[in-house]
Amino acid sequence: MKGYAGKILYLDLSEKTSKQKKLKKKFARNYLGGVGFGAKILYEEVKPKTDPLSPDNVLIVTAGPISGVPFMGAGRTTFVSKSPLTDGWMHSNMGGSFAAHMKFAGYDTIVIKGKASEPVMIKIDDENVEILPAEELWGKGAIEAQKIVKEKYGKQYDTFAIGPAGENLVKYACIIGSGARAAGRGGLGAVMGSKNLKLVAVKGSKKVEIADPEGFKEFRKEFTEKITKKLVNYTLYGTPILVNLINEIHGGLGTRNWQEETFNDAEKISGEVFKEKHFIRNTACFGCPVACGKIFRSLRNPEVTSEGPEYESIYALGSACGIDDPNTLIEADKKCDEYGLDTISTGISIAFIMECYEKGLISKKDLDSIEARFGSSEVLLTLIDKIAKREGVGSLLAEGTKRMSEKIGKDSWKFAIHVRGLEIAGHSPRVLKSMAIGYAVSNRGGSHHDGRPGPEYAMQPEEKKKIDGKSRLNYEINLWTTLGDSLIVCHFVENVLGSSLNENHLKLIRLVTGFDMSIEELRDVAHRIYTLERCFNIREKEVAREEDTLPWRILHERIPNGPAKGFGVTPEELNEMLEEYYLLRGWDKNGIPTEKELRRLGLDFAIEDMNKVRKKSV
Amino acid sequence: MKGYAGKILYLDLSEKTSKQKKLKKKFARNYLGGVGFGAKILYEEVKPKTDPLSPDNVLIVTAGPISGVPFMGAGRTTFVSKSPLTDGWMHSNMGGSFAAHMKFAGYDTIVIKGKASEPVMIKIDDENVEILPAEELWGKGAIEAQKIVKEKYGKQYDTFAIGPAGENLVKYACIIGSGARAAGRGGLGAVMGSKNLKLVAVKGSKKVEIADPEGFKEFRKEFTEKITKKLVNYTLYGTPILVNLINEIHGGLGTRNWQEETFNDAEKISGEVFKEKHFIRNTACFGCPVACGKIFRSLRNPEVTSEGPEYESIYALGSACGIDDPNTLIEADKKCDEYGLDTISTGISIAFIMECYEKGLISKKDLDSIEARFGSSEVLLTLIDKIAKREGVGSLLAEGTKRMSEKIGKDSWKFAIHVRGLEIAGHSPRVLKSMAIGYAVSNRGGSHHDGRPGPEYAMQPEEKKKIDGKSRLNYEINLWTTLGDSLIVCHFVENVLGSSLNENHLKLIRLVTGFDMSIEELRDVAHRIYTLERCFNIREKEVAREEDTLPWRILHERIPNGPAKGFGVTPEELNEMLEEYYLLRGWDKNGIPTEKELRRLGLDFAIEDMNKVRKKSV
Repeated sequence: MKGYAGKILYLDLSEKTSKQKKLKKKFARNYLGGVGFGAKILYEEVKPKTDPLSPDNVLIVTAGPISGVPFMGAGRTTFVSKSPLTDGWMHSNMGGSFAAHMKFAGYDTIVIKGKASEPVMIKIDDENVEILPAEELWGKGAIEAQKIVKEKYGKQYDTFAIGPAGENLVKYACIIGSGARAAGRGGLGAVMGSKNLKLVAVKGSKKVEIADPEGFKEFRKEFTEKITKKLVNYTLYGTPILVNLINEIHGGLGTRNWQEETFNDAEKISGEVFKEKHFIRNTACFGCPVACGKIFRSLRNPEVTSEGPEYESIYALGSACGIDDPNTLIEADKKCDEYGLDTISTGISIAFIMECYEKGLISKKDLDSIEARFGSSEVLLTLIDKIAKREGVGSLLAEGTKRMSEKIGKDSWKFAIHVRGLEIAGHSPRVLKSMAIGYAVSNRGGSHHDGRPGPEYAMQPEEKKKIDGKSRLNYEINLWTTLGDSLIVCHFVENVLGSSLNENHLKLIRLVTGFDMSIEELRDVAHRIYTLERCFNIREKEVAREEDTLPWRILHERIPNGPAKGFGVTPEELNEMLEEYYLLRGWDKNGIPTEKELRRLGLDFAIEDMNKVRKKSV
Repeated sequence: MKGYAGKILYLDLSEKTSKQKKLKKKFARNYLGGVGFGAKILYEEVKPKTDPLSPDNVLIVTAGPISGVPFMGAGRTTFVSKSPLTDGWMHSNMGGSFAAHMKFAGYDTIVIKGKASEPVMIKIDDENVEILPAEELWGKGAIEAQKIVKEKYGKQYDTFAIGPAGENLVKYACIIGSGARAAGRGGLGAVMGSKNLKLVAVKGSKKVEIADPEGFKEFRKEFTEKITKKLVNYTLYGTPILVNLINEIHGGLGTRNWQEETFNDAEKISGEVFKEKHFIRNTACFGCPVACGKIFRSLRNPEVTSEGPEYESIYALGSACGIDDPNTLIEADKKCDEYGLDTISTGISIAFIMECYEKGLISKKDLDSIEARFGSSEVLLTLIDKIAKREGVGSLLAEGTKRMSEKIGKDSWKFAIHVRGLEIAGHSPRVLKSMAIGYAVSNRGGSHHDGRPGPEYAMQPEEKKKIDGKSRLNYEINLWTTLGDSLIVCHFVENVLGSSLNENHLKLIRLVTGFDMSIEELRDVAHRIYTLERCFNIREKEVAREEDTLPWRILHERIPNGPAKGFGVTPEELNEMLEEYYLLRGWDKNGIPTEKELRRLGLDFAIEDMNKVRKKSV
């Protein structure tokens, strides 16, 4: 089958067995790859109410049709599982090249279930799949562990691993792969840890055949020119270039746990400063001429270099914690990578505890005598260590903002900045209404890669204030991100294909897979996948609309100062946007997909589960 | 079934019989109404290669779910048939209130086939359907004939009729209904004439029940406020307000048979002049607060008043013929209404003959000694009489531009301004690239109500020049117009619902019919209908892409002067847009719907016909 490796690999760590299934054409056309494959497999493989950290949960590692094809960003890998942080649907996507090598080895997807009795790693060499002891890697950093394995088995292996945070089941432990790229969100590193799985290595000798190599070559050539022009700022500065823009122009840089959205010291941690003072070199994903990755050096501890921080890490570890020292951010970023911690959830969890401390909701004693004030580099770096090791108060922090607020109680839930349990990213739902609805309906929770902020950043302030058309805008964006995450292409690259599903997507799919789709069939593919992710959440949580909300602070406090002073989103506005969104999707007024729509999308298998919850919701 | 009358009436004029069929829910959900019902019924009822003027052709008169519901413009009626002008798919839509009354009588659609042995009219009174002799109406004007029938049977009857042009089988004879509203395009009046059918009258005593009357009331209230604000210029001036805008700002007013696109004397026939000097009063469709219709008086012959001219008539009879006298246009418009002639095809056919005469391609002798120069009011009015009566050169003109150019020969085809045989409307495909692709792929041909010009008029000149995104834009517009023509709502009203399919359409459909659709299901409905219309054309003509083109002049001559000087569209640009369009639709590279897409849309019954033509096209 063109564009695909053709097989799915199933591994059982409890049984130490593996089997392979042939990829079916109808399945591929209906779900494409990436999150699409993940959504279908997760719904089938995980029994309702499975504990995310139990052997019965699965970790799905998946490529898409574009993976391994010589196209920009075609090495990105998607991980799908039930999240220990949100207890619901989670996918997270990392740069690098793992998915490409997985396909070279013959697999579109790897499904890992069970739990090894002792630490193991998986080594895949085309047909040869081994589950090997990995006692010597346990406790090692995520980047370090990969280095050791490459030294032992050869540099041709591509790898991903967890660090101590994953081993210690930190609820937002991440997966680090292809060196230092992170699949950050939702605690999928803890899922690996719960399975005693430290690392996966893959090497393949095959090629990915595509449907129309000549046509593809031409398409790629045209596209490469466009992308290098359009993304020049990412080549020069990487994502940190956004810091000044979002702070100064849009006034939407979450600051001191979103008490404000303008950070007066943002200039000090801006992309320009990182480039000028800390930059060593660029890094790039498989096949990508943009090379948005940046390696930075701490000037305080010159032996510390890090691949990052990205914009999101600068926001979460920086402005959200009131930190204005770039050296601290580089060091914190490196720690997070080696420990295998999601920088966003780490930063926002620390910001939350800082606000709790300043408001007197948690005592110094309960904080292991740490004076957790906003702005302290020392506090930040110390707490990161504690979280990864689950040491003292680190064990509380390791549970994430939602669970912490439940434990600390009082009014702390009002400023727990998460959606569905996932800490929100650095694009303001008070400034951008499309992000407000985007976060609220994101199946993952507070992710900035289901909704996307770009289209609304381009609007004038008066347009931003309105909710008219924002639900529709977010719906179109959701189709687009879902497709990008299925193909799999990076969203920056996808943006050059066009900011909504269009003929370029169709061409690319046709050239690679030979699937001759109309735009309507393609829209249905994306809509099907997102709806199925939603079904998974509803099946697991037995609620729908109740979870489609935003942090209390976002809904009840206006931005107090800066360029977006007075901006906000009310519960009424959110409700109106939700109603429109459900209507567009063919979900009922409680946000549960209707039987008719499920049938239309070929998701008949979810009807019974949905009707069960529907009955309760009436 | 909510929102529908529930029955389809089949009439056979040869047999003088009628039968009724129950409307099926699945059919209604898949095709909605209007052109949707028309597309399915036409494909089934008309055998391949049927002569459009033979008894075997059918005339389909159809309402949609909105017809007869107290909503703006909910009286519009759609006629569908195989066109004698284009030999392909045709639908034409008139304002007024006929469709509302048809539903009150119990019918969503009336399908008329056969041919009466002598002139007849049809009289429908709820269940009571009569085919009555109409000898005394034959030869009467289309408006006059309706008056006579209302005087005889009562004013409660709503009616439509043909004039002498339809009786004389003028290829672009139109249908005139609810007084003076025209279903103008494509010669459906000739289809009536060929059946010896002069008039149809309907009276009903039922009500249209809707799914959610309370919700609808609220929706309607909100919407009415919006519409009256947004369409205030149409209330004040009607469509003639466009004349100055399109001439002065956009430089795209087809002038002297599109040799130019700026008419220096446009000001004299502008909406402002008509309002100031000729206006008597407004007219409105059933349920519409906008009342865009205008009754104007000729100052030269004050006994002549006309409902119109609309913008399109001012373009076709005015600038295209070089005529700058508003009195002439009011008189010509009134003649066309009474004769039952499409003003666009009439004007452009005359403009064509004027250019032929000025270029020496047709002699004065062959023109019955008329010096057919641009700008002569006398020539225009005389030729209209001759066309309707098929008198002398009128018989040539009555065949339309395409057939005339075939008869006159030489280079005349280069300036025959039609697509698929249908004369193009007054929105320039050289100024607006979305109209270029819009006309080229319109199933009817040169209609301005499949593609729509509005979105591109709003763009800056530099944006207008580009073809990027125009195919996609036209595709989205096509979905939108197809839906409007299925519901049926007027496109001005639909524009207030939103400029592309959105949640307002979903709400309206849900409130009226109870169909709980997602936006994707709705998009498929529109895509299904347009694709089926396309299939009809391909089945009849056995070609696809070959007909998706524009007049030679448009593709090879640039606009010579005015605000859009130098604008044009090349064959290469059109080709590129076509390729994109086919891709979006799921049509193959020759523009034939693929088997997969037909199956996906539930159009399996057309697969064999399409494959037959596909084989030839390879």
